[in-house]
Amino acid sequence: MSKSKTTFKISKENNFSEWYTEILNAAEVTDIRYGVKGFIVIRPWGAMILDKMFKIYESAMKRTGHEPAYFPTVIPEENFKKEAGHVKGFTPEVFWIESKKGEERLALRPTSETAFYQMYNLWIRSYRDLPLKMYQKGSIFRSETKATRPLIRGREFQWIESHNCFATKKEAEDQVKDDIDMTESVLHKIFAVPFLPMRRPDWDKFPGAEYTVGSDTIMPDGRVLQLPSTHMLGQNFSKAFNVRYTDEKENEKFVWQTCYGPGMSRMMASIIGSHGDDKGLILPYTLSPIQVIITPMHSQKKDKEIKKLAEELNETFFEEHIDAKIDHSNKRPGEKYFFWEMKGVPFRVEIGEKELEKKVVTLSIRDLDEKRKVKIKDLIEEIKNLGAEFDARLIAKSDEEFKSKIVSCKTKDEIKKELSSKKIAKFNFCSTQENGKICAEFIEKELQARVMGTNERNNEKPSGKCLFCGEKATAIVYAGKSY
Amino acid sequence: MSKSKTTFKISKENNFSEWYTEILNAAEVTDIRYGVKGFIVIRPWGAMILDKMFKIYESAMKRTGHEPAYFPTVIPEENFKKEAGHVKGFTPEVFWIESKKGEERLALRPTSETAFYQMYNLWIRSYRDLPLKMYQKGSIFRSETKATRPLIRGREFQWIESHNCFATKKEAEDQVKDDIDMTESVLHKIFAVPFLPMRRPDWDKFPGAEYTVGSDTIMPDGRVLQLPSTHMLGQNFSKAFNVRYTDEKENEKFVWQTCYGPGMSRMMASIIGSHGDDKGLILPYTLSPIQVIITPMHSQKKDKEIKKLAEELNETFFEEHIDAKIDHSNKRPGEKYFFWEMKGVPFRVEIGEKELEKKVVTLSIRDLDEKRKVKIKDLIEEIKNLGAEFDARLIAKSDEEFKSKIVSCKTKDEIKKELSSKKIAKFNFCSTQENGKICAEFIEKELQARVMGTNERNNEKPSGKCLFCGEKATAIVYAGKSY
Repeated sequence: MSKSKTTFKISKENNFSEWYTEILNAAEVTDIRYGVKGFIVIRPWGAMILDKMFKIYESAMKRTGHEPAYFPTVIPEENFKKEAGHVKGFTPEVFWIESKKGEERLALRPTSETAFYQMYNLWIRSYRDLPLKMYQKGSIFRSETKATRPLIRGREFQWIESHNCFATKKEAEDQVKDDIDMTESVLHKIFAVPFLPMRRPDWDKFPGAEYTVGSDTIMPDGRVLQLPSTHMLGQNFSKAFNVRYTDEKENEKFVWQTCYGPGMSRMMASIIGSHGDDKGLILPYTLSPIQVIITPMHSQKKDKEIKKLAEELNETFFEEHIDAKIDHSNKRPGEKYFFWEMKGVPFRVEIGEKELEKKVVTLSIRDLDEKRKVKIKDLIEEIKNLGAEFDARLIAKSDEEFKSKIVSCKTKDEIKKELSSKKIAKFNFCSTQENGKICAEFIEKELQARVMGTNERNNEKPSGKCLFCGEKATAIVYAGKSY
Repeated sequence: MSKSKTTFKISKENNFSEWYTEILNAAEVTDIRYGVKGFIVIRPWGAMILDKMFKIYESAMKRTGHEPAYFPTVIPEENFKKEAGHVKGFTPEVFWIESKKGEERLALRPTSETAFYQMYNLWIRSYRDLPLKMYQKGSIFRSETKATRPLIRGREFQWIESHNCFATKKEAEDQVKDDIDMTESVLHKIFAVPFLPMRRPDWDKFPGAEYTVGSDTIMPDGRVLQLPSTHMLGQNFSKAFNVRYTDEKENEKFVWQTCYGPGMSRMMASIIGSHGDDKGLILPYTLSPIQVIITPMHSQKKDKEIKKLAEELNETFFEEHIDAKIDHSNKRPGEKYFFWEMKGVPFRVEIGEKELEKKVVTLSIRDLDEKRKVKIKDLIEEIKNLGAEFDARLIAKSDEEFKSKIVSCKTKDEIKKELSSKKIAKFNFCSTQENGKICAEFIEKELQARVMGTNERNNEKPSGKCLFCGEKATAIVYAGKSY
């Protein structure tokens, strides 16, 4: 096992699928050998990344006025049936629990609208109780029939879901925009994963929603991956669950609702897929469980002093809230380097006789594959600056790649060509209302691609005709291949 | 609803059961109206307490060399059956998932030994992989048939479970001691809940364990509550799951295992039950979601200045990592005071015209029911000192009460009397091996009390005879009534 770890080398560009499978294993992010289809173990290296992601996302939730809650993992069958679109959309995916004698049948939550909203019915009375913004973190369960893939599509995955209620439609629509902004500020600006905010076509919205805005990124193999989605629920659920409030003039009204579901497992997949290279993972400085690995060199004369310096640096990093660790193992230096590079650690601090003498360290930067000398007295400040630069560089690189992968197309042939070159195609389309579904189905069948939707951020105006049916185009849509 | 909130007043001593039920509701800690037996909602106030508890416990786990992981919530039936004692002990409590066509039956985890150890079988090869110390946080599921009670006994509850493997029996036994130390350092020294480390009688150990040490506290109604338990698993599970390692001399050996399960929901129940008073919750400074509530007084002349000062103080608290909040509501001052006292907030900072003028605040301390003037320039330091004092006072008070509730008894009548005065009785007992079970059953039947075990911390030597069968006493045991 340790042999394969020191020699990780797979071409990410040519064999992304193999690269992805192997790096999850080599870096001990996940283990797929749990023995139940679609259920995997997230190992410590993955768990620590995930914990940092959760912490950042929860802090974003709180900053924007959301409060945490813990709802049961189970949902009574009766609740589940209350909103017609919702039950139709989710029932095929539900895991049911064998009923205890005389008790109701329970679902393992595939999402928690029908858990939250029965309580909102009890908690909301007056306009003073609004807005109500609440979230929970945890795992949800969907009995996928498609092929599963670790962190990308599973039958249990980690997420956050927020469920908000407002007095007016306007506030709810603003929340949808705020949710997209949160995706931008966390997923893009911290996790360094660019995305397209896609207003889904009507046939692809969340079951029970008025409309849905998904966030799509593209993986190196050209597959589109859906990341956090936000949903304008309108009053569909508030009517089904009778969630009303009394306004200032004593009128009873149904609340307006939104929900938002940042899927942590998938975002982790996108971070791993976007940033790694042939040598293994590259983790954003902000997310890496170890931000600085310290590798003391063996020395015949100065072993003790070198170890002491390593301990001192480690302690200083701790005090400065930088996650560091000393590699005390008796591996050869080269082995240590390969190992921590493969794990995606942003910075390596090497200390040997020369460094000790000159009061410097040799600092190695993972993504640049570059070494530089840094004075020990400047180390903390340097790491902090370089850490910010590291993440900014990841964002810039991802943005550039992402931009190059979105291509405007004027003909069906162009679309076909771009899709098979691992790109997202952008083109004139008849309609994202129900009447556009025929063209979308054609695209799915002929090009094995999915119409992702229209860009919610830019108001892109079509001119001309739908490239498929020849009707007047009412939308510019994006399409890509998905897993 | 707001009316009842401002007038919370229930005698905790005389009506603990009512007090407990009502305060969970009034302080919006939990909601029992979810509609499924034994499943409750933890509302934001409760969720924020729980999150702080998790953070502290996880930090204690990491400090002692444990790494986090996320295992699936489901366990294949086959795994579950591998350890005979374990399957026998847990099967009646399992929720099963309806099998998907052609797939194995899955259990909702009631505890995760059988999930972790099949992976340990894959991960552990050599002595270099040991010790392996891993934990996960999350919820578990047990189909309780007894009456459920919010946070005390439910069918889903929040916990942490750690699962450790060692090369030697000695290391495993030391881990059991370390687990008790962790309980002491967190539950007692931070959460301010004293406990007895009880080595369970043989008939009451964890299914599959060699021995179990539970942590028992006593609630104000005299009921004993089991808090974190640690289990010496010996090699029972490593043999069942074939978890072996190769030692330095190339010999294959089974690992020695321990597991530890700090139940967060129950610890929260104990915190709430131990520290509250007739006016509502009293939360340790370290755990309160709001540590300082700022209440600006309405003023005709100086309203703006008072609000400004409140904002400034709030900002300073934030910078100093003190969780503060301004009560901007238009309730009367008295209403605000009652409300935040009922919620258990340790400190209230009042600002009015006088305070503004004299550059002081009026600081109110929840448990002492005492007000004092503090200079604004000293406020941060005062709060930090008083916060530490606040928690130290809760610990001292709880310790004293706890000590007074443990009574040595010389006769059966004394035991009976103390048990019915809401006490724990301590007495000579024949044996905690299987041959003592008859006396234990007698105690259960006649006195409605449970033999909790022997004190793992103090080596208490019996002298004389068992108070029940008259045989030579081999143990001093503790007994109490439980929920």
